[in-house]
Amino acid sequence: MNKEMAGVYSFLPLGLRVIRKIEKIIREEINETLSAQEILMSALHPLENYEKTGREKIDVLFYTELVSKRKLVLGISHEEIIVPLVKKHVSSYKDLPFYVYQIQNKFRNELRAKSGILRGREFLMKDLYSFHTDEKDLNDYYEKSKEAYRNIFEKSGIGDKTYITFADGGTFSKYSHEFQMITEAGEDLIYLCQSCKVAVNEEIIEECPNCPQCGGDKLIKKKAVEVGNIFKLKDKFSNSFGLTFKNEKGEEKLIQMGCYGIGLGRLLGSVVEVYHDQKGIIWPSELAPFFAHLIQIGDDPSVKKACEKLYSESEEEILYDDRKDVSPGEKFADADLMGIPFRLVMSKKTLEKDSFEVKRRNEEKVEFVKIKEINNFLKEKHAS
Amino acid sequence: MNKEMAGVYSFLPLGLRVIRKIEKIIREEINETLSAQEILMSALHPLENYEKTGREKIDVLFYTELVSKRKLVLGISHEEIIVPLVKKHVSSYKDLPFYVYQIQNKFRNELRAKSGILRGREFLMKDLYSFHTDEKDLNDYYEKSKEAYRNIFEKSGIGDKTYITFADGGTFSKYSHEFQMITEAGEDLIYLCQSCKVAVNEEIIEECPNCPQCGGDKLIKKKAVEVGNIFKLKDKFSNSFGLTFKNEKGEEKLIQMGCYGIGLGRLLGSVVEVYHDQKGIIWPSELAPFFAHLIQIGDDPSVKKACEKLYSESEEEILYDDRKDVSPGEKFADADLMGIPFRLVMSKKTLEKDSFEVKRRNEEKVEFVKIKEINNFLKEKHAS
Repeated sequence: MNKEMAGVYSFLPLGLRVIRKIEKIIREEINETLSAQEILMSALHPLENYEKTGREKIDVLFYTELVSKRKLVLGISHEEIIVPLVKKHVSSYKDLPFYVYQIQNKFRNELRAKSGILRGREFLMKDLYSFHTDEKDLNDYYEKSKEAYRNIFEKSGIGDKTYITFADGGTFSKYSHEFQMITEAGEDLIYLCQSCKVAVNEEIIEECPNCPQCGGDKLIKKKAVEVGNIFKLKDKFSNSFGLTFKNEKGEEKLIQMGCYGIGLGRLLGSVVEVYHDQKGIIWPSELAPFFAHLIQIGDDPSVKKACEKLYSESEEEILYDDRKDVSPGEKFADADLMGIPFRLVMSKKTLEKDSFEVKRRNEEKVEFVKIKEINNFLKEKHAS
Repeated sequence: MNKEMAGVYSFLPLGLRVIRKIEKIIREEINETLSAQEILMSALHPLENYEKTGREKIDVLFYTELVSKRKLVLGISHEEIIVPLVKKHVSSYKDLPFYVYQIQNKFRNELRAKSGILRGREFLMKDLYSFHTDEKDLNDYYEKSKEAYRNIFEKSGIGDKTYITFADGGTFSKYSHEFQMITEAGEDLIYLCQSCKVAVNEEIIEECPNCPQCGGDKLIKKKAVEVGNIFKLKDKFSNSFGLTFKNEKGEEKLIQMGCYGIGLGRLLGSVVEVYHDQKGIIWPSELAPFFAHLIQIGDDPSVKKACEKLYSESEEEILYDDRKDVSPGEKFADADLMGIPFRLVMSKKTLEKDSFEVKRRNEEKVEFVKIKEINNFLKEKHAS
């Protein structure tokens, strides 16, 4: 990644590939568990919409304006856009429930942005919005979303360290829920119950000093980073925009809403916080930008040929380091830094053994795999 | 699509699927012909960078600021970001040439934005930047980009109507090139030479009154919309940021640059301008949000079962209209409006014939295809 200014980053090729892997995990889980349709909303929002919801003075808004002086804000989330949009399409109980999501850039004018990509001023979010006839239906979907979130964090490799955390529910819900990953780099403080895998955010620890699940009082204080949150909005935003539906009796009722966020860059950063050593990143296979890192040593034609054959024939994603004028030591250091799961070395020495030298990023030992077996070897490793 | 304000649109599920198809065509062509790496740069840019290039007063900039009052702009293009970024990574002729691209949102504070998605204030662009040791290498790549662009517009279905158009090259190049698609909805005027398939933008018609290819003077004036442009930046931006490299003799030289844009929403809108009738859109297969539109008529269990079997078993992308309480006429009208290439109808009547009724969106005739042959039928049609 490249830092453009504090809290604003560009994704370079490898980082972007990791983001695409995260997107894939999220989309698959949403299709499977939450049945939402994907859309893509704008970043420019009319300020009027925020005046309707009372969010026009939130301290993290970026403001801008049209040539005509009409005031705009950059979206911090999309309730002010999705609610008027859904109002155009939904009018009857027959249209409900209804779920949409997007993966899109959000903007927050943070006073300080010092935790790298863990707290961005511009950041990629998955935000999902659900629309229901009643609170019971909202509650059911909300529970399903917890399951989906657990699956997403599990598949991303941070399931073990991520706790569902009770947090402030605003004026309209008792609690919201965050998914907090334990890390010393985190800016949040949570109190966790080891046995229930549940935590309480510091912001509500006074009103909720015990584990909300088992009632136990042995909570342990930890630093954590919020990688996702889910929130029952109920009728807060429906009310602001008059988002109603006609029920079976023909009565007009406010739609009940939920919203569900995951920060993709933050998730990426959290994974790196967990999976690294002093040499660099150690990607879990599911998120790794490539599956194997092929290093050619020297420019012997037979060595080069063996590398090119693997690179062009393999079904796995391979990063091929064929740089000249770069020492083997430098290539190894770069491979460790990038953290791709398998390192494959081809040199005159390994060629004498008719083999690639293979090393996993997270292990010390190396092994030799015959050239004619390397494709099967990688395939098997990838499947396991 | 949903209009949030003039020039600002959200993509709804079907529109977003079309955008994904366009992205796929673009990415494949870039991989094949232009060998560029994908990155993703930020939308927030420091105003300082624009002061360095003299673009800080461009009249279409959106301005905003941090809490600290540091001035920012929303990116209209990314030279001010990519050049400092490349400066960190490239120092020698060995690192060149080098190509990167992204598909990302741009912002232009247009005074008027009245042509729908053809002229947006917020819009999705593919922008590619190339970096070269000398002008010859830039010129070679520039020619390759023309070929790539022709392929992209061909695959998108507007190849026939899209003319490479000579346009103003700024202070540093004689010409730039636009790809202009002929349409009455266009805001640009071009003068085209039918025999050469080349055009001249009105902005330079006085200095270039003849066809730049054959020299002919029978140019025809047409309204058009610019769907892409390519530009030799040469050392304009390298100069502003001191983006240099050391050549083989160890001399410090400025890097030569080109930039290459395609507006995705504009391309989508242009395709719709070409492919529609009074009933709605007629998508070319490559861009269609789905390949087939399956309409269930009535709720007879056997009819429903036949639909669900096809929907779950087909390898094609199928949109399944299983709405109750919606008349067949309404469903047909919606299918015409959405413009998916094949319409498949299943009703008690067609079931008696053990068939789906099949109609192409762009033809009047219907045919009946046996249920057990429908999968092969669709597969064959898709391949052809």
